[in-house]
Amino acid sequence: MDHVNRIWRLRKRPIGDISDDVLSFEEESIPEPREGEFLFRLDYLSLDPTNRIWMSDMDQYMPPVELNAPMRGLVCGTVVKSHHPDYPKGTIVSGLGVWADYQIGTSQLVSPMAKTDPVPIVDAFSTFALVGPTAYFGLLDVGKPKEGETVVVSAAAGAVGSIVGQIAKIKNCRVVGLAGTDEKCSWIQDDLGFDVAINYRSADVPTALAAACPAGIDIYFDNVGGDILDACLKLMNLKGRIPTCGLISQYNATQPVPGPHNYAMILMQRLRVEGFIVLDYAERYPEAIADLHQWLAEGKIKVRTEIVDGLENALETVKKLYTGDHTGKLMVRTRND
Amino acid sequence: MDHVNRIWRLRKRPIGDISDDVLSFEEESIPEPREGEFLFRLDYLSLDPTNRIWMSDMDQYMPPVELNAPMRGLVCGTVVKSHHPDYPKGTIVSGLGVWADYQIGTSQLVSPMAKTDPVPIVDAFSTFALVGPTAYFGLLDVGKPKEGETVVVSAAAGAVGSIVGQIAKIKNCRVVGLAGTDEKCSWIQDDLGFDVAINYRSADVPTALAAACPAGIDIYFDNVGGDILDACLKLMNLKGRIPTCGLISQYNATQPVPGPHNYAMILMQRLRVEGFIVLDYAERYPEAIADLHQWLAEGKIKVRTEIVDGLENALETVKKLYTGDHTGKLMVRTRND
Repeated sequence: MDHVNRIWRLRKRPIGDISDDVLSFEEESIPEPREGEFLFRLDYLSLDPTNRIWMSDMDQYMPPVELNAPMRGLVCGTVVKSHHPDYPKGTIVSGLGVWADYQIGTSQLVSPMAKTDPVPIVDAFSTFALVGPTAYFGLLDVGKPKEGETVVVSAAAGAVGSIVGQIAKIKNCRVVGLAGTDEKCSWIQDDLGFDVAINYRSADVPTALAAACPAGIDIYFDNVGGDILDACLKLMNLKGRIPTCGLISQYNATQPVPGPHNYAMILMQRLRVEGFIVLDYAERYPEAIADLHQWLAEGKIKVRTEIVDGLENALETVKKLYTGDHTGKLMVRTRND
Repeated sequence: MDHVNRIWRLRKRPIGDISDDVLSFEEESIPEPREGEFLFRLDYLSLDPTNRIWMSDMDQYMPPVELNAPMRGLVCGTVVKSHHPDYPKGTIVSGLGVWADYQIGTSQLVSPMAKTDPVPIVDAFSTFALVGPTAYFGLLDVGKPKEGETVVVSAAAGAVGSIVGQIAKIKNCRVVGLAGTDEKCSWIQDDLGFDVAINYRSADVPTALAAACPAGIDIYFDNVGGDILDACLKLMNLKGRIPTCGLISQYNATQPVPGPHNYAMILMQRLRVEGFIVLDYAERYPEAIADLHQWLAEGKIKVRTEIVDGLENALETVKKLYTGDHTGKLMVRTRND
């Protein structure tokens, strides 16, 4: 075991894009677990769009990270020292932690991971910890797809969007995805089975969407807000649903962002726009994980994980979430075996 | 019976405010009902914010009025000639018609009015035809208020808003209304029993709302959109609901209107924003009318009707809806007894 701990601390609230002085990378001593706690070594750090929200002091769904506190993240690690009977040394845990090589865990924040065979642990962590249940409950519980309906997904090659589209196919919907490169588009269409993929950077989105959705849109799974939301609103069918999962187009904004110009479609088409956060479904995770595990094992859902080695690269890597410069789930690996 | 018919026809689609050349007032011959139809004389013409939507060619919930066609409206009248067994001469009918002294009715568009005693027929028409069921289903079915919750209503001295607030009081909610004059504010607070009334023209709305809603907002019944929607979004509680009934602040806009700047609160507070149109509830009207009739008869709901005499004044009168220059339900009376 090492003698120093490396830890990312939040030093400034980001204004616009995340800059290098927002976080600092420090060497500190390794903390000692108290009674009922345990110490775990980080194996994987998940990088998610919500990281940018936690850094800011915008209105949000949990308290933001305090200035000078360790940066919050979803983590997977291995217990190295324990004062908790249910988390003996060697237990693989996942949940809410911080961007540090070593950290204190409690049973409120992290849980032991069940065996994941035949699914590799990194895919299981990447899928089950956050993005899989997000896609699952957002599409099925908020969106309530019916067979034959048209589902549009933005950020469709992203960690959540790629799973949303695949679940919608399992539910026999027509699925249209928007992504930002031709490579991503061919991945979701050729490998994941989306019916149509639209490159939103090169296509005229309103025209391409109208062509891809001849029967209109029944569900728009919104990961981005902004112009794509506006284009979808225009095509929504009567009683359409817009599960609102993310608004990544505006997290880095420095000015107040106008809402969608086609907001009035909510009235005209009697739409339901509903925000959700996967944490609200914590009690129902087992239901999602059982289905997702089966679909992964059967190959009905494929996941792509982009792994960057080294905790020292976390800040550079998190920026990729907002430039679209990645495909699938973004992850930092800190284990060296 | 007269020998000429007077009728308002749509000549231009309005751009911005409704101008005098949008409608023309014509003298025409009185139409003859065919088999299965009947002719009725207009007694009351209801003027409603949705009239402006029907005049325009914006995306809307039913086809707009065609150019040169008679202007559509909610009407109450008396059958004067009938070829339909269920609508004998003398039947009082209400439903969807046109702005004309005499018009053809069918059983698809208008229904006989049940006896309304002890409620005067004009109050019954004004309440039961559209605004009462709108308030009833929008608040109860879409908003789903729970005892003790805080309900905010915009256009609270308007026909729908004033009933929404009174139903919310019946359901034991804290009710805050926004209206545009001190007189309207004192009406809803002193006569209708709202807990707080805010004059949105003289108050600083975000500050006044925050003071009026110390426990946040659980339901914002949206009649207006715009800045008031934005101010309410900022104060919404977790899992709050925004039944979207109208967006009157933008119906007269000549430029695309930005949506609410605080749209992201939908995600952060997991809100449900849901558009509805009372026509979707047509099958359930009897349920609403039974409760509303009882509440009116018991004096638990009070309605105020602003009556203007003379069909020739309909165009001048409909403009009042968008200037806020009226209180309660706006109505043109054409019967002269």
